Amino acid sequence: MSVPYDVPLQDMCFVIERWLDAPAFWREVPQWTDLDLAMARQVLEEAGRFVSERIAPLNGRGDWEGCRFDGGDVRMPAGFREAYREYVDAGWPTLSLDVRHGGQGLPHLLDVALQEMLAAANHAWLMSPGLTHGATACLGTHGSPWIRQTLLPKVATGEWLATMCLTEPQAGSDLALLRTRAVPDASGESYRISGEKIFVTGGEHDLTDNIVHLVLARLPDAPPGTKGLSLFVVPKWLDAPAGRARNPVHCEGIEKKMGLKASPTCTMRFDDAVGWLVGEPHGGLASMFVMMNAARLQVAMQGVGHAQRAWHSASSYAFERMQGQAVAREAHGGAGIATVPIARHPAIHRQLAQGRAIVEAERAIGYWAGYWLDVAEHHPQAAQRQTAATLASLLTPIVKAFFTANGFAAASNALQVFGGYGYIHEFGIEQTLRDSRVAMLYEGTNEIQAIDLLKRKVLADRGAGLQLLVSELSAEATRCEESRDTAAQAAGVRLAAMCANIVRVTEDVTRGGASDPELPYRIADDYLALLGWALLAFAWARTLRIVARQSGNDPFDADKRALGTYFFADPVTAFDDRCTRIEAGCRATLPSLVES
Amino acid sequence: MSVPYDVPLQDMCFVIERWLDAPAFWREVPQWTDLDLAMARQVLEEAGRFVSERIAPLNGRGDWEGCRFDGGDVRMPAGFREAYREYVDAGWPTLSLDVRHGGQGLPHLLDVALQEMLAAANHAWLMSPGLTHGATACLGTHGSPWIRQTLLPKVATGEWLATMCLTEPQAGSDLALLRTRAVPDASGESYRISGEKIFVTGGEHDLTDNIVHLVLARLPDAPPGTKGLSLFVVPKWLDAPAGRARNPVHCEGIEKKMGLKASPTCTMRFDDAVGWLVGEPHGGLASMFVMMNAARLQVAMQGVGHAQRAWHSASSYAFERMQGQAVAREAHGGAGIATVPIARHPAIHRQLAQGRAIVEAERAIGYWAGYWLDVAEHHPQAAQRQTAATLASLLTPIVKAFFTANGFAAASNALQVFGGYGYIHEFGIEQTLRDSRVAMLYEGTNEIQAIDLLKRKVLADRGAGLQLLVSELSAEATRCEESRDTAAQAAGVRLAAMCANIVRVTEDVTRGGASDPELPYRIADDYLALLGWALLAFAWARTLRIVARQSGNDPFDADKRALGTYFFADPVTAFDDRCTRIEAGCRATLPSLVES
Repeated sequence: MSVPYDVPLQDMCFVIERWLDAPAFWREVPQWTDLDLAMARQVLEEAGRFVSERIAPLNGRGDWEGCRFDGGDVRMPAGFREAYREYVDAGWPTLSLDVRHGGQGLPHLLDVALQEMLAAANHAWLMSPGLTHGATACLGTHGSPWIRQTLLPKVATGEWLATMCLTEPQAGSDLALLRTRAVPDASGESYRISGEKIFVTGGEHDLTDNIVHLVLARLPDAPPGTKGLSLFVVPKWLDAPAGRARNPVHCEGIEKKMGLKASPTCTMRFDDAVGWLVGEPHGGLASMFVMMNAARLQVAMQGVGHAQRAWHSASSYAFERMQGQAVAREAHGGAGIATVPIARHPAIHRQLAQGRAIVEAERAIGYWAGYWLDVAEHHPQAAQRQTAATLASLLTPIVKAFFTANGFAAASNALQVFGGYGYIHEFGIEQTLRDSRVAMLYEGTNEIQAIDLLKRKVLADRGAGLQLLVSELSAEATRCEESRDTAAQAAGVRLAAMCANIVRVTEDVTRGGASDPELPYRIADDYLALLGWALLAFAWARTLRIVARQSGNDPFDADKRALGTYFFADPVTAFDDRCTRIEAGCRATLPSLVES
Repeated sequence: MSVPYDVPLQDMCFVIERWLDAPAFWREVPQWTDLDLAMARQVLEEAGRFVSERIAPLNGRGDWEGCRFDGGDVRMPAGFREAYREYVDAGWPTLSLDVRHGGQGLPHLLDVALQEMLAAANHAWLMSPGLTHGATACLGTHGSPWIRQTLLPKVATGEWLATMCLTEPQAGSDLALLRTRAVPDASGESYRISGEKIFVTGGEHDLTDNIVHLVLARLPDAPPGTKGLSLFVVPKWLDAPAGRARNPVHCEGIEKKMGLKASPTCTMRFDDAVGWLVGEPHGGLASMFVMMNAARLQVAMQGVGHAQRAWHSASSYAFERMQGQAVAREAHGGAGIATVPIARHPAIHRQLAQGRAIVEAERAIGYWAGYWLDVAEHHPQAAQRQTAATLASLLTPIVKAFFTANGFAAASNALQVFGGYGYIHEFGIEQTLRDSRVAMLYEGTNEIQAIDLLKRKVLADRGAGLQLLVSELSAEATRCEESRDTAAQAAGVRLAAMCANIVRVTEDVTRGGASDPELPYRIADDYLALLGWALLAFAWARTLRIVARQSGNDPFDADKRALGTYFFADPVTAFDDRCTRIEAGCRATLPSLVES
């Protein structure tokens, strides 16, 4: 009874072609001169077909069945293994992988779109291959020649799946508290790893013949804190003279979770397991961050995927479900129609409009972040690459936290449209709510993202990174104001005012933080959301300018114009609310904590 | 690993004694002249002991085990039946029941506090006895003498549990679409009921020997729509000459739900089942509403219970969990302490302060609504009874929708404090999130509450009911402004401004609705929340005045003063946001719906 996933291909291509004009950039990159929109569209169409036909149908059933832990082994839900095989055989893991590593070398942008599809279709299934990119980047950048030769190709192609072993019971957000140990073994080439890791996604499963763990641990001479962490690669199976040998790394159990029930979250024990150093001794955190940053944009796209799926489910249901009478009958199909689809009820109508206005803008911004990753890697000019890298790095915490919070809110709003049915498993939306919630927690909680943004990326470099972002938004505001379209003009005026507000608020926070060091930490979440709403406004302002410039009578463009105009009339007020909350949070004295 | 439920007895008694000064009213009621705060406190202490020792420990296990459907029977989780027996034997179901019906005749106010405790401890368990009050009120008011003599005592004492059979697959919020039929049988005294009902809480279970269903159905001569609905009482077992006879009403299955897994949500089939008319033919909706209104305040208290439990869990965890370093070390225990409880992190601190500021004010307002029910029933003067009834009726949709939405938000905020552990079943908070979500859907969705409030209770009587509420708030504002305490004065000024805003917004909506009939429906949810925030401000204003008046050095009072002052510095801005959203919603043109 759940609404099937419908890939929003037209909207995706709109962003890639018209909003980003990505093909213009592709033409500047030697390896992409053959890549055009037609080819990109073909890739996305094929991905959409695979995702909706093979991955999406496993979603509800996987949730219901869950993973089974059986004496150290983990059985994945029915169909997961076969679908994963097809995914690997079709080459999807290597879509944006460098051709030097055997990949197809396509833009990250297309992979970002693929991530959105997979998350919307089946977030739990996506968790298994979810670390392939990050692990590939990490091993490709920091791995020794031997690692790059033997392990990397298996990981990059998805033949073997990878994990990230960070968290320990006493060390979550604070990695300084990690205790897992690594000692050099007799050979001098490898190490022996011992310790317990929790929350290891895919620590054990039956999808691939081998599993490659990336593990943070401390060498004997490690300084305390995060500067004493080293990264090791620890395969489940080792090549040995007499065939394969089992490395002593074992799954001790899987968590009973709120959602993502088809993704095993494992407790892993390393008992003198053989591992190899990745990167420099004590430089593990830097090596691991390559992996985490790649993962954070993926997580942001999970938020977009959930929001899209939730909006689409609610919208479809709202057109089917007949309940109650129209408020203004004459406006909706004439008198005499007693019962109407609930989509016609103004409160539901407004809810659906808000949901769509948010998710479409998020898609543009998420793809924009993916686009900057491509520019950072492939632009012929170094200065442009640097600018793009700074922008991508600034955008990452914003989209991770803002989109995942919105994804969860979208799921809850959509559930509400279903009424009592929303609470029932068969309708699918309660699973979206449960699955979406995790994205606010993992890959750095949303609170950690907010601190990363405000302290490290805004205040620490005296606003240089922020200035870049505000320039992008201001430039768009100016272009809109200069447009001949009244809706675009109004959007430009509003966006310019938002930019001024951001600058003012940032100055206030900087000044206030000088005398009250807790101040920035207190309002960091609101600050991140403030930038999030400004980015959505930026997305709609540019959209309004684009659809104004193009033919005026195209129904697609007219629809976008109406939705963008609505965004600036209603949902945009959330920006003002965040300004108010920041001001309140700056001034407020928190009451003493009461230990309960 | 989940945090045990800690009954906030001191806060409850603060509201009853000092915030409401309920004992002063009790002294005016002949049957309560013996009731004083000491006795009330004793009742609550006993309730608290029973709830925390017997009901709360079944919560996590009940969720994990769930209910089992087996060929028409439903098995409740282990321990539920025994706990229910004790609950009945201790007389808890009859706490506020009229002495004429064999009850203890205590104030509704105390029962409201009991409901808060039960919901916080084990929402799913509470669902089973949850309809006892409503069914008792309904049968007591509308039942024939025979029903009042035979069925009512069994239902009132909890010996038999009751259900409410409203919803059918095609008829949820819109009861006009109900199809279940009732035909008079040969005797002329009873009826035969046929049809299918869904979402019947406790339609089948093994807690009691008999189950009494209250069923909405249509008589043969019924007019269409809601004016053709009649209410019937249909027991599972009938008295028959040869002992008990099974009435043909059967459970066909239970729903797989997001939460409340220890409460069976049943599909019930009535196959010519014997039933008796309750109230007038075609007057079923009025009879049923007696039941639903009583239920809605209970649901509001579920929101408060969840918020309290969530805040308490998060707060306890935040004091235990050591992670990261203090921002302003010197402010929190001196230098040299590297790792601090996460409660010391400003973002978490602010979150916890907000959560507490909201739930404590909600408790005051929820109890206030219960207090008005008592006044409406027992005040010696008819005019006072009428005023109280109007206020209770106006408050009901506000607290139902606003508190349940806040309860869910509180659960999600608390979950976030737990980080990754929040997603794990053993920590309990993810269950709170799942269980709390249903309260926004049942007993009338929150959107239905908002329309009930704005259309039926504000606009329909030209604001007379609202005027009463605003007078209460304004009077408090004046008292605060006249207080000698600066915090209370400031709160009074703010509350007075909020009252003026409410009046202005209501006028705008009334005027706007004249030319745009969809307008009130479009902003009804925001309007309800606007009043909700004003009520919380009212609660804190009065609290600030009370704690100022009393001794200045009492730590309890000082703590309330700090929290109340904080409320007016930070969380209160949500009121302004709702004003802005209403203005935006009034002006905005919704984009055309896109059928997806």
